[in-house]
Amino acid sequence: MRYMEGVNSPDDLRRMNLTRLRRLADETRRFLIESVALTGGHLASNLGVVELTIALHYCYNSPTDKIIWDVGHQTYTHKILTGRRALFSTLRKKGGLSGYPKPDESPHDCFQTGHSGTSVSAALGMALSRDIEGEKNCVVAVIGDGAMTGGLPFEALNNAGRSNTDMLVILNDNEMSISKNVGAISRRLSEIRAEPAYIGAKSVARKMLNCLPIIGKPTGRAIERMKDAIRYALIPGGVFEEFGFKYVGPIDGHNMGALIRTLKNVKKLNGPVLLHVHTVKGKGYAPAEARPERFHSVSAFNADTGEPLRKERGGVTYSEAFGAAMIDLARKNTKIAAITAAMSEGTGLSEFQKVFPERMFDVGIAESHAVTFAAGMAKNGFIPFVAIYSTFLQRAYDQILHDVCLQNLPVTLAIDRAGAVGRDGETHQGLFDLAYLSHMPNMTVMAPKNCEELKKMLEFALTLGSPVAIRYPRGSLGVDLESAEIRLGESEKITDGADALLIFLGSMADVALQARDILKADGVETALVNARFVKPVDDNMVKMIGGYKRSYVIEEAVFAGGLAAAVIARAVELGVDVKGLRSLSFPDEFVAHGSRDEILKDHALDAKSVAERIKRENG
Amino acid sequence: MRYMEGVNSPDDLRRMNLTRLRRLADETRRFLIESVALTGGHLASNLGVVELTIALHYCYNSPTDKIIWDVGHQTYTHKILTGRRALFSTLRKKGGLSGYPKPDESPHDCFQTGHSGTSVSAALGMALSRDIEGEKNCVVAVIGDGAMTGGLPFEALNNAGRSNTDMLVILNDNEMSISKNVGAISRRLSEIRAEPAYIGAKSVARKMLNCLPIIGKPTGRAIERMKDAIRYALIPGGVFEEFGFKYVGPIDGHNMGALIRTLKNVKKLNGPVLLHVHTVKGKGYAPAEARPERFHSVSAFNADTGEPLRKERGGVTYSEAFGAAMIDLARKNTKIAAITAAMSEGTGLSEFQKVFPERMFDVGIAESHAVTFAAGMAKNGFIPFVAIYSTFLQRAYDQILHDVCLQNLPVTLAIDRAGAVGRDGETHQGLFDLAYLSHMPNMTVMAPKNCEELKKMLEFALTLGSPVAIRYPRGSLGVDLESAEIRLGESEKITDGADALLIFLGSMADVALQARDILKADGVETALVNARFVKPVDDNMVKMIGGYKRSYVIEEAVFAGGLAAAVIARAVELGVDVKGLRSLSFPDEFVAHGSRDEILKDHALDAKSVAERIKRENG
Repeated sequence: MRYMEGVNSPDDLRRMNLTRLRRLADETRRFLIESVALTGGHLASNLGVVELTIALHYCYNSPTDKIIWDVGHQTYTHKILTGRRALFSTLRKKGGLSGYPKPDESPHDCFQTGHSGTSVSAALGMALSRDIEGEKNCVVAVIGDGAMTGGLPFEALNNAGRSNTDMLVILNDNEMSISKNVGAISRRLSEIRAEPAYIGAKSVARKMLNCLPIIGKPTGRAIERMKDAIRYALIPGGVFEEFGFKYVGPIDGHNMGALIRTLKNVKKLNGPVLLHVHTVKGKGYAPAEARPERFHSVSAFNADTGEPLRKERGGVTYSEAFGAAMIDLARKNTKIAAITAAMSEGTGLSEFQKVFPERMFDVGIAESHAVTFAAGMAKNGFIPFVAIYSTFLQRAYDQILHDVCLQNLPVTLAIDRAGAVGRDGETHQGLFDLAYLSHMPNMTVMAPKNCEELKKMLEFALTLGSPVAIRYPRGSLGVDLESAEIRLGESEKITDGADALLIFLGSMADVALQARDILKADGVETALVNARFVKPVDDNMVKMIGGYKRSYVIEEAVFAGGLAAAVIARAVELGVDVKGLRSLSFPDEFVAHGSRDEILKDHALDAKSVAERIKRENG
Repeated sequence: MRYMEGVNSPDDLRRMNLTRLRRLADETRRFLIESVALTGGHLASNLGVVELTIALHYCYNSPTDKIIWDVGHQTYTHKILTGRRALFSTLRKKGGLSGYPKPDESPHDCFQTGHSGTSVSAALGMALSRDIEGEKNCVVAVIGDGAMTGGLPFEALNNAGRSNTDMLVILNDNEMSISKNVGAISRRLSEIRAEPAYIGAKSVARKMLNCLPIIGKPTGRAIERMKDAIRYALIPGGVFEEFGFKYVGPIDGHNMGALIRTLKNVKKLNGPVLLHVHTVKGKGYAPAEARPERFHSVSAFNADTGEPLRKERGGVTYSEAFGAAMIDLARKNTKIAAITAAMSEGTGLSEFQKVFPERMFDVGIAESHAVTFAAGMAKNGFIPFVAIYSTFLQRAYDQILHDVCLQNLPVTLAIDRAGAVGRDGETHQGLFDLAYLSHMPNMTVMAPKNCEELKKMLEFALTLGSPVAIRYPRGSLGVDLESAEIRLGESEKITDGADALLIFLGSMADVALQARDILKADGVETALVNARFVKPVDDNMVKMIGGYKRSYVIEEAVFAGGLAAAVIARAVELGVDVKGLRSLSFPDEFVAHGSRDEILKDHALDAKSVAERIKRENG
C-alpha cells in the first residue's frame, strides 16, 4: 500500500502522475475489500467509484470546492483520501467512522446524506448562495442512476436547469439502485450505454445522412421512425438537455485518464453540466461484480471467497415472514397486491415477485408515488400492501395523509426496519414512524411481538378496509410466544404481576421478557402487556395503570407521538392517575450508529437497565 | 341557459351536436362567472377547462371511465355536468358543495384531490389494477403545467412510461400554477407553444432539409446548432417521449371540435399517451384573463367589473406582516434569503421578490426541493426562510427531518395557513403541522398571537442558529396586545386569574381573550397564558397547572402531537398533577369545508363554547 499511505489529504493526490493514481486506485480497491471483509459495510457501490473519487479529488479542491455524495454509502474512498484511512477498522462501530458522510467527522463531508436524491437540491443551494456572495468555488453532486427515479432530484434538476449557475452533476450510472432499477429513465440510460461511442460530429453527420432517403416519401410511419432515429442518435442525454443541462458523456468511470481529462474540460463549461459516468458496481472484486445486490451492504466475509464469516442471527426474519405471509394472503385473495420502492429483496418480496409478478410493483426509489399509486389501486377495489423501510417511508408522509387516510382507503403499510437499525446510523433509524403516523385520522397502527403475530396482523389488516400501518424491526427479534387473536384496539396480556406493570410495544418484547425474568429472580413480580396497538390504544390496558404504583411503557421509538405519549394522553382523558407512569422511549435526539444492543444500552433500554430501574423505583 | 339545463349527467351530452356543445360551453362559462361572483371560489382555472371538461365527458364514459382531476380546484364544470349544478349556490359553504372532487359527493369524483401532482400516480394505480382484472375502461389524468414542477408526477410518469398500460395524461398547459410557474420544464413548454402549428410530416421534412447545408462543414458549433434546431423542431414533447409516452399536441383547449376529434383519436392509441392541451386561465372573462392570479381563488365579486364586493376582514394579514418583516431582516443581514414553492403572492413575498430578487427563490410546486435547497444554502452560511402553507409543507416532511434537523441547520419554516383554513376544506386544513414537526430533534416550534409577535419570532429565529418553525393562520386574526421579548421556551402571561387557567397557542388568542371576557362578566376569573412555544414547552407554564383545579390548553391543531399533548407529557415528567387538565384541540378526524368560525363552533372551539365549558366545569 505504498501509494495509499502517502495520501493523507487530497493535496497529496495532486503530486501524483496518472500511473501512480492508477496504482492508488488498485491499492484502494484492495484496501476496501480487505477492510470491509473485516468490519462489514457497503462494498459494491464503493468499489464502483474508486477511480471517480480519486479523479474528483484530483481535479477539485475540497473542502473549498463542495463534493456532495448522494445517498452517501459510497464515500469510503472519499474518506480514505481525506485523512480517515486509519479509522477504517472502526467503520460503522459505536463511536467509530460513520458509513455515511458526516460533517462532524470532516470538513470534506460538506453535506450529510443517507436518504436518496438530496444531493442536487443541496448542491443548487450551495451554488446559488455562492453566486450571491460572488465566490468562485465549484459545486459537484454525485448521484446514482437509482436515485434518478425519485421526485426530489427531478425537482432539483428542473430548478438547476433554469438557474444557469455553474454546477456539475455527475450521474454515476451503474444500472442499479439497491435492486435493479426501474422506469423509463433507466431504460433510456440503457439505450445510451448501448451506443458504440461518444457522439461526435462525424457520427452525427453520418446518421443524419442515413436518414435522408426516407424523406422522399414522408408517410406518417416513416417520419415517426426518422424522428426516433435522429432523436436517439443526436441526443443521448436528451432528457437532461430538456432540463437545461449541458450533457457530457457517457464516459468509462474506471478509466482514470478519461475521467481526469473530462473533469478538467467540464470545469471550463459554464452553467449546469451533467456528466454521465458509467461504472460497474463491485468493480474489481469478482464475487461483488457477480452479485452486486448481495454486496450492497454486507456483514464480515471471507475476502478470498466472498462468503459470509458467520451466519446472521438465526431464525426467520420479519422480512421473510412478511414475504411468506404475503404469498399466502395473495393466494386466497386475488385483489391483494404488493408494492415496494427499490427494495423487493430487503422487504422479503423477492419470492412474491416470482409467484405473483402481475401483482407486484417495484416503483423504484419513489416512495411518494408508491403510496399514491397504492391509493389508486385501492380506489379501484384492490388491497395493496406497501412495504418500505421506516426511515424511507418518511418520504411519503403527505401521500399517506392526503391520498390514503383522507379517503380512508384499505392500504396497509408494511414498515420494515422500524426501531434502531444499528450500523447505518442516524440517517436510517426507524424511530419516527409512530410519530408521523399516529396523528393521521383513520389510521390504525400496530406492532407485532414476533413473526407469527406479524402474520396475524396482516390478516387482521385485511378485515379492516381502512389504512393500516404495521411496523416491525430488522432481523429476527421476536419472542417465542403464542399469539391470541387480534382484535381492534385490544392489547394482549402476557403475564400477571403485582409489583409493577410493563407495557411493551412490538420489537421490545425480548427486552421486556428478559427484564421480567431478571426482576422475578429478584423477587419483583412484573405484569407484562403486549400493547399491539399504538392507535387505537387499548383503554383496558390504560386503565390497568391505575392499579399499579409504577407502570412503564417501553417502545423502540422517540417518545413524542409514540405509544407512551398516547397512553398518557388517553389516561388523562379517562381520568386514570398517571403519577406513577414512566416512559422508556428514545429521547428527542438523533441516534448515531452502533449495534442495536449498544444503542439500547446507551439509552437504558436494554433488559438489565430496565430491570434495574424498575427494581430501584419499586424497591 | 337552455342547453345547460338539459344536462343532468354526461349521457345527456352525447345527444348534442358540436354547435350545441359549443353553446353549452358558453352557457357554462356564464354560469361559472355569475355563480362564483356570488359564492366566491376558484374561477380562473375553471374558466380555462370548460371546453376540455365537456369534451372529456362527451368522449369518455364516467364513472366507468375514470377521470382524475389533479389538484382538483378546476372541477366546477365537471360538477355541473355530473348532476350538481343546482348545488352551486352552496359552493364551499358548510354542508354544501365542496370546491374539490370528493368521492362522497358523486361517483364521478373517482379520486379525491387537493394537493398538486397526485393524479398520474392514482391513474396508474387504477390502470394497472384494471389490467390485472382484464377490464377495459379508460383512465384519464388531467394535470396542469404548474404541477409538473413537482417530483410526484415525475415519479409517476417514469413508472407509467415503462408500464405500457393504456392511460391518458392530459397536460392542461395554461402557463401558470398559482403564480407564474418556473423551471426548465416550464420553459420548454413555452418553446413548444411558440411553434407555429402542430408538427406534421410536412414541416418535419422541411425543417430537416433546412438543416442540411450545415452538414457540409460540420464544425462543433454548427453541429450544436443543428442538433438544437432538429431537436426542437422534431420533438416538442421530447421530455415526455423520453418517459415512454406517446406525445400528442399541442392543441387548442378552447376548440371544442379539435378537442373531441383528438380525444377520439387518442382513444385508439395503445400504451401511455400524453395529450398537450393549451388553455387560457380565466378564458372568456376579461378581468380574469387580465389578472388570472387574482382570480385564482376569489371571494364574492361584482360580475360586471370583477371588483370584490366587500373588503376582506381589515387589518394587516400575517402574510403581509411576514413579507414586510422579511424585507426588514434582509436589509440588516445580507445572508438572509427567502424561498417559496409557487406561492410568493400567497405567502406575502411579492414585495421581497422586487426588493431582493437575487435572494428570493420560487422553486415552483416542489416543496421537498425547497427545503433541501434551503439546507444547502444554510450549510453554505446562509439563513434561509422557507415560506410554505401548512398543508403543502407536509410534502417536505422527510427533507425537514433528514436534511435540516439532522444537520441542525438554521432554516426557518414560515408556515402560513396553519389551523383551520376554511372553505378549501379537508385537503387544505393546516391542522397537522405541530404533529409532524414537534417530534423532530433540534426543532423549535412557535406560534405568534399577532403580526407584531410574528416579527419578533422571526427576529428571534435568527438568533438560534438551528431549525425553527413558526406557524400562523390565514388572514389577520391577531389580537391587539403588546409582546414582551421572546426567550427560548418561555411563555407569556397575559392576565392573572384565580378560577381557571387557559393556555392558548398563537391563532387561538382571539378566542381565548373573548372567552376570558365572557367568563369575567360571569364572575369567573381566568388566567391567560400565551404559550408561544410548542417546543420546547415552557416548564413554568406547565407547573402553573398544579395551582389550578382546572386548566385548559386551546390550539388550532389536532390533539396528537400538539401543544396540549406536549403539556400533558411534560407535566407527567415534572410530577405536576394533570387530573384537572383539559385539551381544547381538534379531534382525530378530517375537517370539511366551512368558514373558520363555523368550523371552530362545530368543534366547540369558539369563544362562547369555550367560556361555557369552563364555566360549567368551574361552577
